[in-house]
Amino acid sequence: MNRIRVAVDMDEVIADTYGAMLNWLIDHHGAQWSAEALSGHQLFDVIDADVAGALRTAMHDGAFFADLKVIDGSQEALSTLAARCDLFVTSAAMEFPSSLGPKFLWLRRHFPFIDPLNIVFCGDKSVIATDCLIDDNARHFARFGGQGILFSSPHNVQVTGYPRIDHWNEALAILSDTFPGAL
Amino acid sequence: MNRIRVAVDMDEVIADTYGAMLNWLIDHHGAQWSAEALSGHQLFDVIDADVAGALRTAMHDGAFFADLKVIDGSQEALSTLAARCDLFVTSAAMEFPSSLGPKFLWLRRHFPFIDPLNIVFCGDKSVIATDCLIDDNARHFARFGGQGILFSSPHNVQVTGYPRIDHWNEALAILSDTFPGAL
Repeated sequence: MNRIRVAVDMDEVIADTYGAMLNWLIDHHGAQWSAEALSGHQLFDVIDADVAGALRTAMHDGAFFADLKVIDGSQEALSTLAARCDLFVTSAAMEFPSSLGPKFLWLRRHFPFIDPLNIVFCGDKSVIATDCLIDDNARHFARFGGQGILFSSPHNVQVTGYPRIDHWNEALAILSDTFPGAL
Repeated sequence: MNRIRVAVDMDEVIADTYGAMLNWLIDHHGAQWSAEALSGHQLFDVIDADVAGALRTAMHDGAFFADLKVIDGSQEALSTLAARCDLFVTSAAMEFPSSLGPKFLWLRRHFPFIDPLNIVFCGDKSVIATDCLIDDNARHFARFGGQGILFSSPHNVQVTGYPRIDHWNEALAILSDTFPGAL
């Protein structure tokens, strides 16, 4: 059979954008939010509007995305996947256009084994033609033609209806369950 | 029926990258190539290797893509298409990563009616899930799941096997022939 085509989201799935946003909030507003306050919510829905505006302004500087931490286990898992399937990274970068260049360079630095031709920056992921999409935002699955697989993040703890990956060290097993014989 | 989804390539289809490359060659090397020498060939296949290298270096500066001319008739045609179908612009920008930001801003400036979420930067267009793709490079059609429609450019004059658009003023008629009743 043909190799399956797997698309992997970037922010909060392989790049710790969420951690960088929390650190920015602590650095600039001395504020901290409890795990309870954040659980089940997008960060931008929990913080005050003026703070959210300042954070968005900071994120419109591409440098915000240049030094994100790598999500634990993602390099090992994606290295394995790249050898066994057609692997794409898809990032909805269009909200912060100046992140496009830094995101591309970040991927080349931390995931050099991913073919640069397989990097996709888009806004509407329904335009992606792959067999599955691993993403922390289930809203991308609504019109996506393949199988959505949820990657756990504090904001999506209550979301059900999709296979879920809590840590990259279980990704291969979950993909093998979802696509028997394909990996 | 659902609105059809149409993807449109950027370079040499709505942005005159080819013209900018020719102008760069004339400005920097005083050289000119005849229409006969260019017909049926990619520009990079016709010019000397050292000149090609210098041109690629120039194109790695994102500014090269900031002020491209708009291809004649593309704004009017895409404005009409945007109202009648789900319109995406897909650019294989990954060869020149520093073009990502300038290309996004160019699109916002010259095609403000295109939803920024419908802008897709990728390398391998087989990952695009639309009903058709209007592109000057037929190589993108090989693994594309929809209908390829060729947009004429000097390098593709001998390519056959696809509907062909010579000028944007005939695009709507050709799309209507290809997808009866859809527009």
